[in-house]
Amino acid sequence: MEPVDRRYGPGHARSMTTDIQIARAAHKLPITDIAAKLGLAEDNILRYGPDKAKISHQTLDGLASRPRGNLVLVTAINPTPAGEGKTTTTVGLGDALNRIGKRATVCIREASLGPNFGMKGGAAGGGHAQIVPMEEMNLHFTGDFHAITAAHNLLAAMIDNHIYWGNDLDIDTRRITWRRVMDMNDRALRDIVLGLGGVSNGFVRQTGFDITVASEVMAILCLSRDLDDLHARLGRIVVAYTRDRRPVTARDLKADGAMTVLLRDALQPNLVQTLENNPALVHGGPFANIAHGCNSVIATDAALRLSDYVVTEAGFGADLGAEKFLDIKCRLAGLSPAAAVLVATVRALKMNGGVAKDNLGTEDVDAVRRGCANLGRHIENLRSFGVPLVVAVNHFHGDTSAEIAALQDYCSRHGVTAILCQHWAKGGAGAEDLARHVVTLVEKGQADFHTLYPDSMPLWQKIETICTRIHRAAHVEALPGIRAQLETWEAEGYGHLPVCIAKTQYSFSTDPDLRGAPEGHVIPVREVRLNAGAGFVVAICGQIMTMPGLPRHPAAETIGLNDLGQIEGLF
Amino acid sequence: MEPVDRRYGPGHARSMTTDIQIARAAHKLPITDIAAKLGLAEDNILRYGPDKAKISHQTLDGLASRPRGNLVLVTAINPTPAGEGKTTTTVGLGDALNRIGKRATVCIREASLGPNFGMKGGAAGGGHAQIVPMEEMNLHFTGDFHAITAAHNLLAAMIDNHIYWGNDLDIDTRRITWRRVMDMNDRALRDIVLGLGGVSNGFVRQTGFDITVASEVMAILCLSRDLDDLHARLGRIVVAYTRDRRPVTARDLKADGAMTVLLRDALQPNLVQTLENNPALVHGGPFANIAHGCNSVIATDAALRLSDYVVTEAGFGADLGAEKFLDIKCRLAGLSPAAAVLVATVRALKMNGGVAKDNLGTEDVDAVRRGCANLGRHIENLRSFGVPLVVAVNHFHGDTSAEIAALQDYCSRHGVTAILCQHWAKGGAGAEDLARHVVTLVEKGQADFHTLYPDSMPLWQKIETICTRIHRAAHVEALPGIRAQLETWEAEGYGHLPVCIAKTQYSFSTDPDLRGAPEGHVIPVREVRLNAGAGFVVAICGQIMTMPGLPRHPAAETIGLNDLGQIEGLF
Repeated sequence: MEPVDRRYGPGHARSMTTDIQIARAAHKLPITDIAAKLGLAEDNILRYGPDKAKISHQTLDGLASRPRGNLVLVTAINPTPAGEGKTTTTVGLGDALNRIGKRATVCIREASLGPNFGMKGGAAGGGHAQIVPMEEMNLHFTGDFHAITAAHNLLAAMIDNHIYWGNDLDIDTRRITWRRVMDMNDRALRDIVLGLGGVSNGFVRQTGFDITVASEVMAILCLSRDLDDLHARLGRIVVAYTRDRRPVTARDLKADGAMTVLLRDALQPNLVQTLENNPALVHGGPFANIAHGCNSVIATDAALRLSDYVVTEAGFGADLGAEKFLDIKCRLAGLSPAAAVLVATVRALKMNGGVAKDNLGTEDVDAVRRGCANLGRHIENLRSFGVPLVVAVNHFHGDTSAEIAALQDYCSRHGVTAILCQHWAKGGAGAEDLARHVVTLVEKGQADFHTLYPDSMPLWQKIETICTRIHRAAHVEALPGIRAQLETWEAEGYGHLPVCIAKTQYSFSTDPDLRGAPEGHVIPVREVRLNAGAGFVVAICGQIMTMPGLPRHPAAETIGLNDLGQIEGLF
Repeated sequence: MEPVDRRYGPGHARSMTTDIQIARAAHKLPITDIAAKLGLAEDNILRYGPDKAKISHQTLDGLASRPRGNLVLVTAINPTPAGEGKTTTTVGLGDALNRIGKRATVCIREASLGPNFGMKGGAAGGGHAQIVPMEEMNLHFTGDFHAITAAHNLLAAMIDNHIYWGNDLDIDTRRITWRRVMDMNDRALRDIVLGLGGVSNGFVRQTGFDITVASEVMAILCLSRDLDDLHARLGRIVVAYTRDRRPVTARDLKADGAMTVLLRDALQPNLVQTLENNPALVHGGPFANIAHGCNSVIATDAALRLSDYVVTEAGFGADLGAEKFLDIKCRLAGLSPAAAVLVATVRALKMNGGVAKDNLGTEDVDAVRRGCANLGRHIENLRSFGVPLVVAVNHFHGDTSAEIAALQDYCSRHGVTAILCQHWAKGGAGAEDLARHVVTLVEKGQADFHTLYPDSMPLWQKIETICTRIHRAAHVEALPGIRAQLETWEAEGYGHLPVCIAKTQYSFSTDPDLRGAPEGHVIPVREVRLNAGAGFVVAICGQIMTMPGLPRHPAAETIGLNDLGQIEGLF
């Protein structure tokens, strides 16, 4: 079955087979068989229907003494509307590693429910490199995000309830930073006034809702090592400040225990499978802007204890995604990647080289060469972390051999192998060359991973280090009050935290239209936020949307069940 | 193991064994074994962990041609703080029927998540008559309520989104009746203003949140026969009115298909087990005031096709619960109960006879006799529906034989058998006499069920009929505008709907302190609401709270995991 390339319109379709049709035609194995591939018995997992399961806490506890396999990060050049195929490559590489005899597991993030009702939902991968069951993974799945919503909103309710009953903690109602969340695109909830209607409804104040994936609870779930760590992190969440500016935590409100209870099941990683019946752990889904954008530490760690190779990805391009993966997730979890795969496409490089989206169908070798500047910048950056890397050229129908040769030539001159991959059309078989190269890189043992900055560096200097060394800004500008705020947090004991940069993913700069490899730009830090529970400080450089809206014609209008009880319109 | 009677404090404890301890010590069978008792194979169910499952839509579709077993309703006298034990009796009777050789299934409602963090959570039953797994059932369970929350809030988001993009339907933003929901006790959300913050966030308007169990989507899920019926009902929901007062429905907004998709899995009934390893379907949980307060039609129907006997319960006392069960659920689903069990306790009758809660420990035969007026009223009412009945005396430690004799004597004089039950202390063995009597009642075939009023009766007359014949009001008073509103709905084609009375559950009157069997009172109808999707008109007679608040010291403050990973403080 040859897939249709929905990524660039029906005119380019090679057949009428879409991602969802391929996913529906999958020959799924019972999830117990997938678990068996990881050496897990039926009582090691909690089944959710025939094709989904969670690995139980008890099983996870028993893995701690096992050695970890090799961790491979899949990252990409800066995203363009042309599409890069990071998840597709992650899945294809996982399948290919299994094909060449390695026990490999794929680890990716869960999808958010709400956005599926705005634009059409995302598959997990594409073509013949997908994870299934696609529909459930785009809907309620195993309920993790609902549990996060509930835990987040319980804390919010306990804040207003505390104030209602006398406000013993002296919370300043103007300085409550904890908002509410909902897994829905609902712009009307961004900015609300609550507590109206009289005495029995509490005190009036202004606040709002974010989408669930933007919740600090999501980031916490994804960075927690176990239930105890989860509990401790939840307790450290700063929700408000008192009249005299002291932070008020979830533990002060005694909400941390109940939140842990709500999240107990959700902390267990979800086991599903690729189209080629290899294990995939799909767990957690923090925003890649105001959070670190990686799947959970607990899933990655479990996969490493159960496999020779774990292939995982990080959100956005390597300047944001890989940096956060390495400086936040790997730092906090003690992970050390053995290799990195940098995904590029000819089409995306052409856009980076100045070609408009509508002209991508025309051969343009020079544009590829110009666009390679973006690729080269990411290669340099990844090398600076001490991680050996390979470039994966995710093949699209229409790429010409001259364009591919130009890309491979560029990489070769920069000392990196670029391997053409056809997993999208052929599944794991299309990524075997990539898999063999990754194994060679790993087995050479050349990885010498180190983070970009030490814990001990002052917060402002951390921001400057990331923005100048990774994003190549000439200068970082702090809006008024920012540096004083950072110093206050340092005085309060938060100075050791890593920094999470929130900026546009489309450019190294803060201008989304500035493709290629800009330098000499200024990055302004507009706002800083303390995520004391998750364990990082967010530096916001630009507009960040934490509650999306629905479009004029939401996908929801055409979503429904067909006569077979299948879901139509979701993809 | 002798249970402790947590219903009236530790001073009365007969041992240190609580409901939760009994539940934890349960010898649960794998859920596949429970399914097998219903004749269901592993591929008929969707497993959620080892002890929970859903019966698949495909299986449900295959049941339609089977004959239905016998439906037994468990209802009660008006609730008092002394506790009656309706669910406990439902479970005990189910187990007892199985003990005497009948294939019996228990059908009850699911618990709401939010309130567990306010007051301590409720077990499903008590003592040795419980349904397990108790903890999961009080937390996320199989995610049904989260799915309802999502479907409800998607519709809400689509309303504001429609207005944002131009309001083609001409919705009057002052006449939007559809609020948002959350499964949380959060009084601050009762009354809010949304859409603040400027142009990109939409139009400012006042609205609020209800708790999820108060959602019309919950009532719809519980009254739908299958996915098609669910889809049709969701489409009929009236969410707002136009400037010229025409109703706007979910179908007008094209939200019905996507809502159906969100609820597809949730519509499948949940299978769990009693402590004695008998099947229990726990599905749906609509409010018993502004909704009909019964478990789902789909669960009850499936259980009837799979069992000889189905024991189910309805919320609150028989005047509200049984009336709605019979006039709404049975009417809409074509169900016909074969018998009813009216639960009473000596303690609750003493409260109805005027004894204060603190004095319930003292023998008071006269008070029992006086309180029997309440019981007698319910007996008369139930008989008027043509359903044969038996009184179950749910035995409490401390009941004296003189008190029990007074109760049995009263029943005997009213032509009803009253059977002493000890299922709370002894499990199914303690309710075998009750089970045998129920079987006798059913096998006599004396049931001649008829609803209280025909579909064709005008809406106001339906309200009057219920209030005068069941609640024994002398007169029903309509506040201004009420009758005109009902007539408008009749003109719009909603006149055939049954009526759902929302009033205090503590009294036949609207005064919660008026126990016993008051008559001659006036019931004022303050507000009427159209639930066109669920298929009933709500008549609100008194204050109805649709979003609870948390108490000064919420249970959440002491909920947490213990060293064994077990949940403490939830019960």
